[in-house]
Amino acid sequence: MNVESANKFSRMYKNELDKIELRLNKLLKHRKPRSLYDPCSYVLEGGGKRLRPFLVLASAKTVGAGFSKVYDASLAVELLHNFTLVHDDIMDNSDMRRGRATVHNKYDMSTAILAGDNLIALAYECLLKDCGSNAKNVISTFNHGIIEVCEGQSLDKEFEVRQNVSLAEYKIMIYKKTAALAEMCCSIGAQLGGGNKKQIDALSNYGIYLGMAFQIQDDLLDITAKENEFGKPVGGDLVEGKKTYLFLRALEKAEGEDKNKLLAVIKNKGINKKDVKIYKEIYERLGILDEAKKEILRYTKQALNNLTNLPNKEGREILNWLAVTLTGRNK
Amino acid sequence: MNVESANKFSRMYKNELDKIELRLNKLLKHRKPRSLYDPCSYVLEGGGKRLRPFLVLASAKTVGAGFSKVYDASLAVELLHNFTLVHDDIMDNSDMRRGRATVHNKYDMSTAILAGDNLIALAYECLLKDCGSNAKNVISTFNHGIIEVCEGQSLDKEFEVRQNVSLAEYKIMIYKKTAALAEMCCSIGAQLGGGNKKQIDALSNYGIYLGMAFQIQDDLLDITAKENEFGKPVGGDLVEGKKTYLFLRALEKAEGEDKNKLLAVIKNKGINKKDVKIYKEIYERLGILDEAKKEILRYTKQALNNLTNLPNKEGREILNWLAVTLTGRNK
Repeated sequence: MNVESANKFSRMYKNELDKIELRLNKLLKHRKPRSLYDPCSYVLEGGGKRLRPFLVLASAKTVGAGFSKVYDASLAVELLHNFTLVHDDIMDNSDMRRGRATVHNKYDMSTAILAGDNLIALAYECLLKDCGSNAKNVISTFNHGIIEVCEGQSLDKEFEVRQNVSLAEYKIMIYKKTAALAEMCCSIGAQLGGGNKKQIDALSNYGIYLGMAFQIQDDLLDITAKENEFGKPVGGDLVEGKKTYLFLRALEKAEGEDKNKLLAVIKNKGINKKDVKIYKEIYERLGILDEAKKEILRYTKQALNNLTNLPNKEGREILNWLAVTLTGRNK
Repeated sequence: MNVESANKFSRMYKNELDKIELRLNKLLKHRKPRSLYDPCSYVLEGGGKRLRPFLVLASAKTVGAGFSKVYDASLAVELLHNFTLVHDDIMDNSDMRRGRATVHNKYDMSTAILAGDNLIALAYECLLKDCGSNAKNVISTFNHGIIEVCEGQSLDKEFEVRQNVSLAEYKIMIYKKTAALAEMCCSIGAQLGGGNKKQIDALSNYGIYLGMAFQIQDDLLDITAKENEFGKPVGGDLVEGKKTYLFLRALEKAEGEDKNKLLAVIKNKGINKKDVKIYKEIYERLGILDEAKKEILRYTKQALNNLTNLPNKEGREILNWLAVTLTGRNK
């Protein structure tokens, strides 16, 4: 992809992102009681990449529909994503997100539970606006996405306390927790854009592989990112003792002293921040960082392969640009 | 209604209830991960009146459809109801429900939040099975019901800490928290049963008035029930300082010392269990218990008035029996 195209799509993304922000801001303005809607608005004002709504828009475009056909559906997936953030933050006991207090921290836990619940129903409400006779299939895809996300979060919590987690199990978990929602976004965009079964499947697969690449990239950035660009402390996953792609792959390959050091992370439920560099050296020595990069590249290629036969050239290019950009991101 | 009919409908209800239990038990049996589905199953095994699924069945019948047309929809509303119980129990810090540990008590809070979330998506999944070309309207009704319930719960939590709550505000809250879900059940039964707009509206209204009567009956039973029949301590609402129909109406009417005693409940956020009888006497002196009974009767009559023009005689009789039975219940 040439620089000119990349700039064009980057501008298009920013432009759509601004419109999404405007629509999200308007959405809950006049609803009552404010004790429910203020916390919902608060979380939506927290920003973020708005990647999921953009996936809906671009997928619709790729099967030949205009963005405007799926504006409400694109809000729906962002509402749903924000529901997961609010409830996950409670479960993970996180006080801050994107430099702001989390909902249960700013308000209280009951308010955060209820705001999350309400965001689910609001998401369905938004989605329905863009549905016609296809409502049953579209809603079914949406349901399926939410169930996968709940199952994924449940596995994630389970893995936190389990001693033995395999890399294969980890991949199932990130499929459910991250990739299934990207799959859902692309599928819904394709369905509402009027795509046929083959096109919907191709875009769903693009979403899955993009989601997998995205999550492993996330794991990689945790240790390779520059602190000032990343927006959160480098090595945080190790400090918290998270069983990431890097960690589990390292555990598979390590022997002797390296293996003992890795097992200590599980035993002690994390490490001291000052020891992050020791573990980064282990990862480097075992070639884990290169393996992760290759895995990301492999998933990205699989994502792109699914675009080949889709009808709209510009749509394909946008999704191509998005996948390449995400793989090259540094935060 | 003669005794013979009442017995017939009572048997029919129990029979359908058994079938609902069987279907609920089967629903999540083979799903994984169990860390998510065990707590979901646990809450569904907790029993209950299964009133909401029966409303769906009876409403479908009243517009001329067989129960079997809405079996899955009837499970959907029960799943939804159980989601509200799981999350409300966290918010209310309740350790027990129906003689069993609540989900967050038996497992932990994260598990309970996630189980509740998952029950919402499972509810939509069940509902969709009974939908056809009417999916958009049915799902829209369902969304609306969930949003009302969230708004109602938010108001309920707000009222707990607010000093001044009017009876009118209380009625809005119980409409949202209780009656809107009964309305939704009847509307969905009518829609899926193939009812026309007028019939759907009539059954929705039946649901609203039944729900209002039911909730005020609940408030009344809290103070008039016999402890061994009621299943929970009598006067619990007063002990917890809840602003119920009885309390708010008494506050409107009371003067002098009675008024001071009532204001003390708000100030002290509840009363001592041994003082329940003092407040019962105030309610009796002010005629509040009689007023509540009249209000329940008024709502019940309004519910029944909406049945008049509906096509299926047996359906009408079932809903008539249900309203009268609920009004006369003692637990």
